Amino acid sequence: MRIAVLGTGTVGRTLADALRRRGHQVTVGTRDPERADVAAWAAESGLPVLPFESVAEDAAIVVNATAGAASLAVLERVGGQVDGRVLLDVANPLDTSHGFPPSLIPQPGGTSLAEQIQAAHPRSAVVKALNTVNASVMTEPGVLPGLHHLPVCGDDEDAKDVVVGLLAELGWRRDQVLDLGGLVAARGMEAYLLFWVSVLGAVGTPRFNVRIVR
Amino acid sequence: MRIAVLGTGTVGRTLADALRRRGHQVTVGTRDPERADVAAWAAESGLPVLPFESVAEDAAIVVNATAGAASLAVLERVGGQVDGRVLLDVANPLDTSHGFPPSLIPQPGGTSLAEQIQAAHPRSAVVKALNTVNASVMTEPGVLPGLHHLPVCGDDEDAKDVVVGLLAELGWRRDQVLDLGGLVAARGMEAYLLFWVSVLGAVGTPRFNVRIVR
Repeated sequence: MRIAVLGTGTVGRTLADALRRRGHQVTVGTRDPERADVAAWAAESGLPVLPFESVAEDAAIVVNATAGAASLAVLERVGGQVDGRVLLDVANPLDTSHGFPPSLIPQPGGTSLAEQIQAAHPRSAVVKALNTVNASVMTEPGVLPGLHHLPVCGDDEDAKDVVVGLLAELGWRRDQVLDLGGLVAARGMEAYLLFWVSVLGAVGTPRFNVRIVR
Repeated sequence: MRIAVLGTGTVGRTLADALRRRGHQVTVGTRDPERADVAAWAAESGLPVLPFESVAEDAAIVVNATAGAASLAVLERVGGQVDGRVLLDVANPLDTSHGFPPSLIPQPGGTSLAEQIQAAHPRSAVVKALNTVNASVMTEPGVLPGLHHLPVCGDDEDAKDVVVGLLAELGWRRDQVLDLGGLVAARGMEAYLLFWVSVLGAVGTPRFNVRIVR
């Protein structure tokens, strides 16, 4: 499939590289492809890095791996390219401006960033996933032992199926994927990040995840 | 030990009853001990139910099991009775006024309810714990199989030790208690509730918890 990954931070680079290795045609979107570190990574990885305005023209799936604080503005630049596409939202709306721990950037009416993206792009099908684990776990869930879960949510069941298929390629077994239902569950998945940050200090590594025990 | 439990909702009743069964001298605080359902429960349980203003006079530990939206006002009525005491905060600042799912009641400066309680009662030692599981799990962690974790945080190590001792009496093994450090981690523990609510729908029962997998 043709997949456009938005963002050249650790998450964007990790996902773009992993998806390309699974045989997909991946383009990577960035604000300024000429920026030195971005151009260096593009040369090293061999991945086409394009401006947000043209990165997703032929994509079937658009992956939002930008910083949560910038996501809505970036997606405005991506514009109509997301219409009719699956929009996998991996972003977390964290405010890191006052140091550690970060807080959540409040979304209108207590909603989530994912819902705000969906509202701004009603012709795309937003699916929230992968925001609850570190980049090192996203593309290699087997680094953690035994059963652990990856929450997923979205209003469009077909789009969710497409994402679950991608997750399977990344190593997430079906019994590890926890379907939380509609996109409203993204409120919990994004709030979870504050918990994740608290646990980070206690376990001393970002390589962890949770298993739902019932 | 003498323990005062604030609140006669499900959490308060469950904790008061469980702590009494472990041999503690438990009093229960409420707004109006004469209210019919509270008086009926008091008669049935045999637990002394007292007004907030006098419930904790002899208590070594005060347990805040009130609704998060009411906690600061209740603790103002409890007043100086919490000075020099361990204050175990089990409350969640949930706003349920607009239906399901609830949102978090924003705390000043992106802090947590637990930190606000600590700031309002600087001579008490606030420890956050037990807010991340349903009442049915709090006092009987063995209802869930295998390892699952209970986060705990607080700025006073001695107070945290007292709480960990109480948790052990309720059945929480030492390896299940996850010390998240200072009270600032309560931000994550309270935000976690929105995640908990999202998972609730997917698993179909409030009897669940998480295991940190690393």
